[in-house]
Amino acid sequence: MPSPIALVSRMNAKAEAIWKQALRDAMPEEEILSFSELSGEQKRAVDFAIVANPDPEDIAALPGLSWIHSLWAGVERLVLELGDKAPPIVRLKDPELSRVMAEAVLAWTYYLQRDMPAYRENQQKALWQELDYRHPGEMTVGLLGLGALGTAAAQRLLHAGFNVSGWSRSAKAIEGVATLTGDDGLEDLLEKSDILVCLVPLTDATRGLLNADRLGAMKKGAALINFARGAVVVADDLIAALDSGQLSHAVLDVFEQEPLPPASAFWQHPKVTVLPHISAPTSRESSAKIVAGNVKTWRETGTLPETVDMTRGY
Amino acid sequence: MPSPIALVSRMNAKAEAIWKQALRDAMPEEEILSFSELSGEQKRAVDFAIVANPDPEDIAALPGLSWIHSLWAGVERLVLELGDKAPPIVRLKDPELSRVMAEAVLAWTYYLQRDMPAYRENQQKALWQELDYRHPGEMTVGLLGLGALGTAAAQRLLHAGFNVSGWSRSAKAIEGVATLTGDDGLEDLLEKSDILVCLVPLTDATRGLLNADRLGAMKKGAALINFARGAVVVADDLIAALDSGQLSHAVLDVFEQEPLPPASAFWQHPKVTVLPHISAPTSRESSAKIVAGNVKTWRETGTLPETVDMTRGY
Repeated sequence: MPSPIALVSRMNAKAEAIWKQALRDAMPEEEILSFSELSGEQKRAVDFAIVANPDPEDIAALPGLSWIHSLWAGVERLVLELGDKAPPIVRLKDPELSRVMAEAVLAWTYYLQRDMPAYRENQQKALWQELDYRHPGEMTVGLLGLGALGTAAAQRLLHAGFNVSGWSRSAKAIEGVATLTGDDGLEDLLEKSDILVCLVPLTDATRGLLNADRLGAMKKGAALINFARGAVVVADDLIAALDSGQLSHAVLDVFEQEPLPPASAFWQHPKVTVLPHISAPTSRESSAKIVAGNVKTWRETGTLPETVDMTRGY
Repeated sequence: MPSPIALVSRMNAKAEAIWKQALRDAMPEEEILSFSELSGEQKRAVDFAIVANPDPEDIAALPGLSWIHSLWAGVERLVLELGDKAPPIVRLKDPELSRVMAEAVLAWTYYLQRDMPAYRENQQKALWQELDYRHPGEMTVGLLGLGALGTAAAQRLLHAGFNVSGWSRSAKAIEGVATLTGDDGLEDLLEKSDILVCLVPLTDATRGLLNADRLGAMKKGAALINFARGAVVVADDLIAALDSGQLSHAVLDVFEQEPLPPASAFWQHPKVTVLPHISAPTSRESSAKIVAGNVKTWRETGTLPETVDMTRGY
């Protein structure tokens, strides 16, 4: 009989219990226990854990881990905190997550293309004023990041008639998308995007990527959507770019500190739409199924899905 | 040599001149004159006019008209004002208009599905609060009207994963859409729609269609999008339904009086999004080309596109 699976998170007890139930429903043949439920003997025996931003000390207390599966797609905190001592990490790759993120990209692209913020402002002034309609075929949406999320977003945007360009660390080929890479490619993307959508993982290479220089290299009057991580954008530089008119609007779903502190200038900025990290909520049901499938394959064949490259950070 | 084509509108001179140029560009072989430019002899000779809500007296002053082509898709005013004396009317059927309307339907459906109004309100209060995500597959969008616009909208919504139901005066069949007709069908549509999108032409049968009774028959907490004509919805009944919580939100692009008067309760209503009739702006270039094509066919073969049924009103 295999040892139990440990569920290790920093969620509150109630949230963790809901997740534990979803995971048990998805793999009733497995014994799944919270870290706090494990006996000393079980801690030594556990060879696999499902994690959600776990306390590194808890992971260190499970010496027999042969791998861990993150419930989240974003693992930058896990990578940073576990460092060299980490067992192989599998991060969540959920097609439903890609679908819902692609939907968010299209929804907030329409929000900007259809001038919803400006019409909202005009409504407050009881101002009846038609703004120029922009045909999607005359606009370029630039995707910063072409992983599973960026690729799914590209397809939705293409279907909606937008021109799509995308930049990624390693060269990609996606039908219908002008794909770019390297520093020159990034400059090219910034120059031509009417709407820039940030979907890159947070790594040493992407932290502070959108600073004053790069925001200044964007097309005048372009808009930014950040659905990645707050720290990819330098907050003060973004506010300066909005205030100067260099950028017309920013839709921000992610922030360096979450929840966004009440004192943040973003809340009341007229050119900022603040969202509480909701662009692509993880579906418990769907992700529990994915994890269960990966666990089953591992039990039966001993093989793991692709693991996180700790140097690259995702 | 054929007689000149008359352009008859109630636009101001500048707007009419821009349209005249677009029409001349699209059919350089035709002579196109504004009504005010026609000599008495030309008025008697003119056998075809391009119109945009013309003064009925101007139309009466052109006794030789064998047909008229409306620059707009909505002809309820023309039908009402010209009545029995109207020559055959062709209204604009522009695939680009259907495309841009379908885009608007999807864009503002996302606006509601993704809770953009609520997040906007929360932002004003600096409130960080995730709202439940609603999967499109768990929502039904009801289309009131399944003409060219409704059909195009249905296809975009289906591609986005929404359940789509549609109601029309005469029975229709559209793949993937639950199509309804008659009074029972309307009741069914009202009951099951999470978002009801109004795309019907304004006729005697649709004036005041969405009154207190019918709004009361809708699913509790549903939302309304009106992209048709203001008079299809009884304004006071709508405000009552929003105030009571029967409806959660209304996106209104059309009003009985446009521009919407500053005193209208819609402007400041927290559950209303006011748009200045911009859901599907007519593309001058595209519609001038359509009109030119219809004129060319008529010159060459004497046949007209489908004309407006004056009893039905569209």
